[in-house]
Amino acid sequence: MAAKLLVEFIGTFLLALVIGMTALDSSLPAGLGPIAVASVLASMIYATSHVSGAHFNPVVTLAFTVRGTTPLRETGPFIAVQLIGAVLASLLSLWAAPPLPDGASIAPLALDVVPTLVFETIFTFAMVFVILNLASARPLKGNQFSGLAVGLVVLAGAYVAGPVSGAAFNPAVTVALGTMGVADWSDVWMHFCGEFAGAMLALAAFTVVDRESTTD
Amino acid sequence: MAAKLLVEFIGTFLLALVIGMTALDSSLPAGLGPIAVASVLASMIYATSHVSGAHFNPVVTLAFTVRGTTPLRETGPFIAVQLIGAVLASLLSLWAAPPLPDGASIAPLALDVVPTLVFETIFTFAMVFVILNLASARPLKGNQFSGLAVGLVVLAGAYVAGPVSGAAFNPAVTVALGTMGVADWSDVWMHFCGEFAGAMLALAAFTVVDRESTTD
Amino acid sequence: MAAKLLVEFIGTFLLALVIGMTALDSSLPAGLGPIAVASVLASMIYATSHVSGAHFNPVVTLAFTVRGTTPLRETGPFIAVQLIGAVLASLLSLWAAPPLPDGASIAPLALDVVPTLVFETIFTFAMVFVILNLASARPLKGNQFSGLAVGLVVLAGAYVAGPVSGAAFNPAVTVALGTMGVADWSDVWMHFCGEFAGAMLALAAFTVVDRESTTD
Amino acid sequence: MAAKLLVEFIGTFLLALVIGMTALDSSLPAGLGPIAVASVLASMIYATSHVSGAHFNPVVTLAFTVRGTTPLRETGPFIAVQLIGAVLASLLSLWAAPPLPDGASIAPLALDVVPTLVFETIFTFAMVFVILNLASARPLKGNQFSGLAVGLVVLAGAYVAGPVSGAAFNPAVTVALGTMGVADWSDVWMHFCGEFAGAMLALAAFTVVDRESTTD
Repeated sequence: MAAKLLVEFIGTFLLALVIGMTALDSSLPAGLGPIAVASVLASMIYATSHVSGAHFNPVVTLAFTVRGTTPLRETGPFIAVQLIGAVLASLLSLWAAPPLPDGASIAPLALDVVPTLVFETIFTFAMVFVILNLASARPLKGNQFSGLAVGLVVLAGAYVAGPVSGAAFNPAVTVALGTMGVADWSDVWMHFCGEFAGAMLALAAFTVVDRESTTD
Repeated sequence: MAAKLLVEFIGTFLLALVIGMTALDSSLPAGLGPIAVASVLASMIYATSHVSGAHFNPVVTLAFTVRGTTPLRETGPFIAVQLIGAVLASLLSLWAAPPLPDGASIAPLALDVVPTLVFETIFTFAMVFVILNLASARPLKGNQFSGLAVGLVVLAGAYVAGPVSGAAFNPAVTVALGTMGVADWSDVWMHFCGEFAGAMLALAAFTVVDRESTTD
Repeated sequence: MAAKLLVEFIGTFLLALVIGMTALDSSLPAGLGPIAVASVLASMIYATSHVSGAHFNPVVTLAFTVRGTTPLRETGPFIAVQLIGAVLASLLSLWAAPPLPDGASIAPLALDVVPTLVFETIFTFAMVFVILNLASARPLKGNQFSGLAVGLVVLAGAYVAGPVSGAAFNPAVTVALGTMGVADWSDVWMHFCGEFAGAMLALAAFTVVDRESTTD
Repeated sequence: MAAKLLVEFIGTFLLALVIGMTALDSSLPAGLGPIAVASVLASMIYATSHVSGAHFNPVVTLAFTVRGTTPLRETGPFIAVQLIGAVLASLLSLWAAPPLPDGASIAPLALDVVPTLVFETIFTFAMVFVILNLASARPLKGNQFSGLAVGLVVLAGAYVAGPVSGAAFNPAVTVALGTMGVADWSDVWMHFCGEFAGAMLALAAFTVVDRESTTD
């Protein structure tokens, strides 16, 4: 299990570092942050999914636990290293990011409850639905496009949900945003609820689709 | 068939939601909307084409019906859930998109008849020709690049046809643009005609190419 | 052969249309044109290389003719339909592109002889070297990444050679640029020389590499 | 071995040329340089990894030497042609890049020691860890995504480490940056140390992960 935990740590750390640096670096042209985030995610999925499944996300680990793909004794350690990786990456980002112009400080996202819940739910749903199909649908066994497909749905989600909810889709990322002051700690429950709901809805939809399409 | 209808609904809903939010959100840097749209389309094709064929587009469903790939009894339900998904996504986009600066309201696209017809026809042709080859050409059976190839032709088409025709290539998307006020209802017939013509031309070209290249 | 000529026509027409529209449309954010061009090229390669080899480029056809992959009786017709497709797409672009602001007219590229020759040669070399390896190297037989790899080298070449030489890498594209007034007819010989030299150098390098690496 | 050295030269030359031209060309919209760099790298990996392994990077060659994949007698020649290719490409970039506006001259990167070391280490680690998994992990044998996965991790690294360390991740690139005056010669030791450390850490992490995951 050490190998699995190591790659989950590496992957989540790098994901959160790219999110942190692009969120804090005001010199990056607008709109390129999501490209960097989707790129590192896709690359790490390609490099490591044969080891740990490349979750990098507590609600993905939960969904695979409910499905029985991830054994229960791995669930806690997976989530723990994901959170540790994300927090360390946030601290590194805070230390390394160039200062904001004019000594400005980071303004946390102003999040409205209902839109935040709706968009975190919808795009976490989309991402987890993609992940479950690519990882578990029998006709897609051995496919070569899981990194690409997951990266692309996150890219689209980041552009669309970004201005509404902050586009985390991942409790470890939400904790990173809180640690950096990009999200207010009093708001992170909206993310957690949407992320959990989205993942469970995706699991339900996948279960229906998978049963039907393999018995057809 | 429930599984197929569910994924057609999910895919078209997400496609139209990304189109809607990027069309209505004036804070997104120019030119990034098409990247988000192509990304979500490619990702959903990868995740679901083993279930329903991943049409997400009434004229694609029509083309597969004429070819005999989609049985006639599925054609109507497919198109119905695609339209329902697109309309629901438009309503959600209208509700969630940040307000335009200075209280401006959405100006519908100013479309000229002939250029709109020509560009919707050409790029719907290009997209459906790509889809038909990837899905049905025998030498490409089992290929792993259909999501990518369809996403890329839509991306190019969105940049090129966007300023001319609005770049829908899909009657469900056209209905979404109408619902959001991005296209004028009195103009949508141009889209529908171009989309239908493009799809049928693609079917004709594919039929010629496929017969010749497999009998060579 | 009709199927091959039809897809060569379609592919080169769409490639030149995307180049033409993005070159003439001043409303497209700078830097996005090459993304559209690389995207349509990659997509058409994926969709049609099983039919014609997806050349869309007279010097690629020449290189495959010298190698013996393309039979001599196909060389002339391939190049003819590529040129016809490119010219028709240029005329369509001139007709459809939105007028320049303030009634300005298109200024042809100001090309210096030596840099133009050098950069057209280098990046045509790079592109044709990639194409030859992907299409003909035995260890890469049946690979699924040829569209992507060719699109990406063209994308890089467009960014780098664009400001120096106009980044055609393709005599059919050069003819399209001439037809639209984007390149001066008195300058196109530089493109042709660089494109021909680049393709022949790529053929030489590939021949050396391929012989050595398969006899190792 | 001549074939291997030729493709290592071609690949590193093109990589450094794209880096050089996009670093020196102030007309390229901000943020597009990394896309061009990642694209040419991915494309050349796809086209040539069956010949030489497509290192294009002295620390990658070192890592494969330590692993035993690259025989010791090839290590020196590989690194030599990589450096020669990078220097020639820098000189060509200096000659061909459009002059800076107002006769300005190139300002070398202002690098702080610790952040530069940290970010060169982290992203060289990430890149080499991806490369080692894709090239050597048994479950990934024959995969079709190595070009894409390496290109994407470099793209993310370029956006994130660019403003901090200059984002070389490659001693040949560092030498190119020095030759062009983009990096100060007195600073390149920071790059070299970070690149070497990152590659060796990646080798260590890969060795642990690979042993564990194949004995599970």
